[in-house]
Amino acid sequence: MVKITVIGAGRSSTALIDYLLKQAESQPWTIQVVDREFDLALRKIGGHPKGEAVKLSVLNPEELDLLIKNSNLVISLLPPNLHYQVALLGIRNHCPVLTASYHTKEMWGLDQEARKAGVLIMGELGLDPGIDHMSAMQMIDAIKSEGGLIRSFDSVTGGLMEPKAVTDNPWKYKITWNPRNIVLAGQGTAQYLEAGTIRCVPYLSIFEHTKKWDLGVSGQFDSYPNRDSLQYLKLYGLEDVDRIYRGTLRYPGFCRDWHSLIQLGLTDDKTNLHELEVATWSTYLRRFVPPFGHGLLGDTANYLGVEPHDERITALKWLGLFGDEHLPVDSGTPADVLQVLLLDRWSIQKGDRDRILMHHQIEFEKDNQRFLQTATLDVLGDTDEHTAMSKTVGLPLGILAKNILMGTSFPVGVHIPVQKDFYEPILQELAAAGIGFHETKVALATL
Amino acid sequence: MVKITVIGAGRSSTALIDYLLKQAESQPWTIQVVDREFDLALRKIGGHPKGEAVKLSVLNPEELDLLIKNSNLVISLLPPNLHYQVALLGIRNHCPVLTASYHTKEMWGLDQEARKAGVLIMGELGLDPGIDHMSAMQMIDAIKSEGGLIRSFDSVTGGLMEPKAVTDNPWKYKITWNPRNIVLAGQGTAQYLEAGTIRCVPYLSIFEHTKKWDLGVSGQFDSYPNRDSLQYLKLYGLEDVDRIYRGTLRYPGFCRDWHSLIQLGLTDDKTNLHELEVATWSTYLRRFVPPFGHGLLGDTANYLGVEPHDERITALKWLGLFGDEHLPVDSGTPADVLQVLLLDRWSIQKGDRDRILMHHQIEFEKDNQRFLQTATLDVLGDTDEHTAMSKTVGLPLGILAKNILMGTSFPVGVHIPVQKDFYEPILQELAAAGIGFHETKVALATL
Repeated sequence: MVKITVIGAGRSSTALIDYLLKQAESQPWTIQVVDREFDLALRKIGGHPKGEAVKLSVLNPEELDLLIKNSNLVISLLPPNLHYQVALLGIRNHCPVLTASYHTKEMWGLDQEARKAGVLIMGELGLDPGIDHMSAMQMIDAIKSEGGLIRSFDSVTGGLMEPKAVTDNPWKYKITWNPRNIVLAGQGTAQYLEAGTIRCVPYLSIFEHTKKWDLGVSGQFDSYPNRDSLQYLKLYGLEDVDRIYRGTLRYPGFCRDWHSLIQLGLTDDKTNLHELEVATWSTYLRRFVPPFGHGLLGDTANYLGVEPHDERITALKWLGLFGDEHLPVDSGTPADVLQVLLLDRWSIQKGDRDRILMHHQIEFEKDNQRFLQTATLDVLGDTDEHTAMSKTVGLPLGILAKNILMGTSFPVGVHIPVQKDFYEPILQELAAAGIGFHETKVALATL
Repeated sequence: MVKITVIGAGRSSTALIDYLLKQAESQPWTIQVVDREFDLALRKIGGHPKGEAVKLSVLNPEELDLLIKNSNLVISLLPPNLHYQVALLGIRNHCPVLTASYHTKEMWGLDQEARKAGVLIMGELGLDPGIDHMSAMQMIDAIKSEGGLIRSFDSVTGGLMEPKAVTDNPWKYKITWNPRNIVLAGQGTAQYLEAGTIRCVPYLSIFEHTKKWDLGVSGQFDSYPNRDSLQYLKLYGLEDVDRIYRGTLRYPGFCRDWHSLIQLGLTDDKTNLHELEVATWSTYLRRFVPPFGHGLLGDTANYLGVEPHDERITALKWLGLFGDEHLPVDSGTPADVLQVLLLDRWSIQKGDRDRILMHHQIEFEKDNQRFLQTATLDVLGDTDEHTAMSKTVGLPLGILAKNILMGTSFPVGVHIPVQKDFYEPILQELAAAGIGFHETKVALATL
């Protein structure tokens, strides 16, 4: 009997667990779903005969070790800082480990050990990171193999909603993934390459530093720079480009309005606040807005340098920041407080469908001609639980897990899916499941 | 034989070690100075017969344990994150431990254990924190004991230079303490109380959010809010005030110019930069300044919203940020890079004297009258090595150490010097050593 263990039954596990249970119907496989909340694990299995729910406090290393010892493959959907422990136990127990999170330096440091043990430790195998790596590398490898010289690379991704699910919401946004990452997005310095020059964008201007996109699909979009694009020069083998930009997509207005939250100081995660238990949203906001004598709304507009009827003020108002409701928390940082507010105001509702958009744009030279090649993914969720986010994060993990257990041989060691061995079968099966890219290629100037 | 151990022979240890050696001349004491750099420890002892230099890699817990076991009192000047280990070993070996750093939550958690062992673990016993606690509590206790009701509390401190040491320096600033703290100052959310309302100030506006001070001593000063003033309501027993503000003093212009560094993104400590080994200061700055087509200087002025001849630009230019020198580092965050630059440009020179300024301002009511009482400390360094910073950080530690070893009995457990038992003898001896406060008291309105 083969046992596949999924650790973590949260938001993004739905499609993965469904896929694995479906595969298990025709194989001698059991799918074990582990979570601290037993009921959550049970619900995700939905009574399927090939599924087992297990309650586990993951902070107990002995239990975790036993679990991994008795598994043939482990998929960790735990918070990223816990993957390392799972990977270590995976190597010790000769059990492959797959995650959708960024590999840390520490994780890469396990490469020798994993190779020696003959075990695959695969990270960044979700949507972003994940499908972005795979689809970009497929384009890049194909262009290079045909003799093209790549000159620029742009890649933008967004976890959005279909327009009709956000008509009444001035932010045009709801939460389909880790809300913590949404609140802290952009903290640090974003880096990318433009016209051969490195550009550094500090947090205090990152959401003003946007680009507009018309992607050939319905809607207009803004992007803000996504962390460190420069590391992809080496990772993707793009040392000859004079432009590399990775961005996060939002509907127009979101970035402008989010910048207001940053300006007000509502996204800081370093400082614990006092006396939240006596605050209402308006007295809370008042702490951050210097008094100019025009009332809270007028003072806020003044502080942001806009008119009181500006869209930024409308967006803040819609969140309830000028209201008299009491805060539902009594301690935490500004980021903690904002997260609680957004989980309420931006919650996905029955009947809502989310939307994943990914777009790559590559300029290359071949036969004295310059070309522009694009690939665009536009996927809708099935329901508010079977989201596009859950599908695009979970299916790559599920497909690789299946292929490993069906006997396909893969490289061992610590990896991310930038090699053809990994990305080709996964992208093929994703496309067959309706998660396929639309490609275009146009000739630009003759050189 | 009594052994006093000073761990860490860095910048702020000079006056402490001199003081302890002086005391040891008339006592059966040895002063053991421990550092990773043996030569530094040796130099601080200066051949004194009562001094011993010891080389120690502090990351070796066995050696550290042995050292503390053989000591009668330990003063830790290590980086703050290492004090906890020293305190644990101090408790285990019944050896009091003194530090000049903020006590962490973890440290406070040792209180029971320290009491049980009958050991004093004293923190925040330097200048700020340290002399600020002691002098404020002396004023507060005196006002309360005479029946005064305290209504407001302001306290500002600065580690500055005497004016003639910074005449050619537009920042009017040199480094006399931990340069890391200078670069990261203000990150997070500052909090204080004004007119009964909590005010929160985000990092992106903290250096614009200044107050002017005329302290009755030579010079004008600005202050920016210093971290979390609200915790002092409880710590100092000030629950009845409708205003509490703690600030950091700088000469005029510094805060305005430092705000430019923040706006440019040069103080971020979250993100590692690429290709620093090929950068000059001007190509480095170029990464952070969006191209408007007016050259680097013009574009920088444009980005900051000022004229090219503005004092902010002059200050950046003086640092060398528009120059063609190569960066002396090849990796690190923007904060790391800035620290290296400032260590060079803001280094204290032969003959320079530093200046410590501290000022408390308390409004209270008594007998139907409102009063304003102030206390001001203004100390110059003796030389560029025997700095006022070194004296004011080191002497409180030295005086308490002496009093403990001379047999005065003090409370045990985890403490900071807010109790009269601690602050009274220390402030008295400081004043005798020329580190005394000038006090004023004026009657305001009759109530």
